[in-house]
Amino acid sequence: MKIEFWYEFASTYSYPAAMRVEAAAREAGVTLRWRPFLLGPIFGAQGWNDSPFNIYPAKGKYMWRDMARICEAAGLALKAPVRFPQNGLKAARLALLGQDAAWGPEFTRRVYLANFSEQKDISDEGVLADILSSLSLDAAALIAQSNAPENKERLKAQTEEAVARGIFGAPSFLAGDELFWGNDRLEAALQWARTHP
Amino acid sequence: MKIEFWYEFASTYSYPAAMRVEAAAREAGVTLRWRPFLLGPIFGAQGWNDSPFNIYPAKGKYMWRDMARICEAAGLALKAPVRFPQNGLKAARLALLGQDAAWGPEFTRRVYLANFSEQKDISDEGVLADILSSLSLDAAALIAQSNAPENKERLKAQTEEAVARGIFGAPSFLAGDELFWGNDRLEAALQWARTHP
Repeated sequence: MKIEFWYEFASTYSYPAAMRVEAAAREAGVTLRWRPFLLGPIFGAQGWNDSPFNIYPAKGKYMWRDMARICEAAGLALKAPVRFPQNGLKAARLALLGQDAAWGPEFTRRVYLANFSEQKDISDEGVLADILSSLSLDAAALIAQSNAPENKERLKAQTEEAVARGIFGAPSFLAGDELFWGNDRLEAALQWARTHP
Repeated sequence: MKIEFWYEFASTYSYPAAMRVEAAAREAGVTLRWRPFLLGPIFGAQGWNDSPFNIYPAKGKYMWRDMARICEAAGLALKAPVRFPQNGLKAARLALLGQDAAWGPEFTRRVYLANFSEQKDISDEGVLADILSSLSLDAAALIAQSNAPENKERLKAQTEEAVARGIFGAPSFLAGDELFWGNDRLEAALQWARTHP
């Protein structure tokens, strides 16, 4: 029984999802795999050059209010990011390096906290280096590795895999080929994984 | 303690919401008001001349799968409508007549069943007349009344009220000025109404 958690660092609803997915999966007895990807190319292919929450103001206004309620209920701080959406490309390249490493989940959570509760610029390599260092990792080596051509290509391939598997937004959960979209579908995804092993 | 249920007959997720909202509100001890409106003018103002589920195929494919899971879990039949989206204008004009009448909720549920489980054309006045007759109502009189200029204007005004109050999709729930969007937010809306009387 396993699920994949597909996330994009600019995505608002991916923040509460990232903060709770590990504990929820553990409690459900479901193995979790973290899968960072990029929404930018997916939105671009749909003709959007910005977040739909900016393109459609009523939807954006609602989203921030909904996020405030969700974060308050979850005990998570939420502060307006330094910009929205932030550019999560460099953070995603690092998260991909950590995807199957012990440090990946905590790195991911700290990037989300930097974006949505600490008003830090997550496109800034210095900010990312601080997060890596806070985890006792070799920041300079990992950043160099994340910017290597093969890792850049790997993130492109991962985003292409997302599209091929039907993903169009974040967060998304996959239980096998069964797709669930949105923080509010985590429980349904875990339930599906448990009943369709 | 009360909530308003804002719905559009073409909206897929409004179908399971309409089928459960009355029982859920009763159980929560919350008074319910049914508010039909039209999404067409709202989508049109955003530059969409079709359902976003048709404009964005990956999102549409997911929605139908998600709806199948939700309806199966709720014990609701779901069959591909005769077209999607259907034109719910005439049904909405009738639902508006019944908005504060005893027959309104059951009329609304039967129109959703006609659309999403019985493969009937809900833009057809004959289909709507059959539903009214099945409720022992005077179909011809109500249809004439629904097409009167003042009722058409009333539906326009109701849709304008939806926009003014931040609504951008369906189903939506309002607890006072607090907006909740989506069938999956019904419980949160009821909880809000109970804790913010």
